[in-house]
Order: sequence, then structure tokens, then C-alpha cells
Amino acid sequence: MYIGKKPSMNYVLAINTRMMEGLDELTIKARGKTISKAVDVAEIVTNRFITDANDNQIKISTEEIIHDDGNKTNVSTIEIVIKRD
Amino acid sequence: MYIGKKPSMNYVLAINTRMMEGLDELTIKARGKTISKAVDVAEIVTNRFITDANDNQIKISTEEIIHDDGNKTNVSTIEIVIKRD
Repeated sequence: MYIGKKPSMNYVLAINTRMMEGLDELTIKARGKTISKAVDVAEIVTNRFITDANDNQIKISTEEIIHDDGNKTNVSTIEIVIKRD
Repeated sequence: MYIGKKPSMNYVLAINTRMMEGLDELTIKARGKTISKAVDVAEIVTNRFITDANDNQIKISTEEIIHDDGNKTNVSTIEIVIKRD
């Protein structure tokens, strides 16, 4: 699930709903400034709702963005796996 | 090393300097909105400078902040370990 501009609680509730429906693993992804929000979402989900989740597996990386004018910039990304045995 | 309000490159250069001087392990820490910057710093350091670093070990957590008025809020934190064998 990609974290974007909506309030954190929207993502928390969406993830919570899917995992209550039986999903055992879900990956939260974000780029750039929304990385902080992705960490908030993961922390709220695992502390308040899916408290039987394993320790999160977290990966950070860099993506190259090619803009319309041909310029390239790098943006950091994060992936946080929320998993229940 | 705590990531705060300075530009990312200040932290990148400080970390780079310490590791060039022989330090083999360093932990980048950040809270709240600066988490995104901490990921940028870790990515720039390991992609451009300390390219022989191991895969980062990353831990996320939540801290409670008690304000002057007694109110409590939670803030997410991140710790990224940059390590060289």
C-alpha cells in the first residue's frame, strides 16, 4: 500500500480492515517526504491494532525520477512489511 | 547521530568524515518529520561514500512526549545503523 497525501488514519484504517479480513502480510511503501508518515502508520497499526505482528522488516532504497524536462533527481524510498504468523 | 534541522548534506559530510577517520559503525537517529531526512542521509552515505557498508539495520519505534502543559503525544522514531565489516 502506497502512502500518499491523505491523513495517516485513513491508511491505518485501510490496513487494519484488510488484516482483520484475514490478510497476513502487507507492505507499506512511501517515497520522499511521506516516509515519516509511513513510519507513523506502521507504528500505529502494530501498537494499537495488529499487536500480534512480527517485528517489521524495513528496507530503504533510492529511486531515480526523470522529470518532464529530462532532469533527473533521486528520491529515497521505504518499504515496511507488516506480517503476522 | 541525531538528524535535526540542518541540510542533509551537513549530516552526510559529518558521517563521512567520522567513518573515513576509522569509525566502523554509526547510528543515525531521527524523530517525527525528520525521519525522511534520516533516510536520505543514510542512502546518500551508503550509495556515494561508504559503499562497502553492510545492508542497513533499521528499527522504528514510538516515543511519548510530555509537553509543558502536561499533555502527551506520541512521535515515531527511526534508527538506522551504518556498519562496515
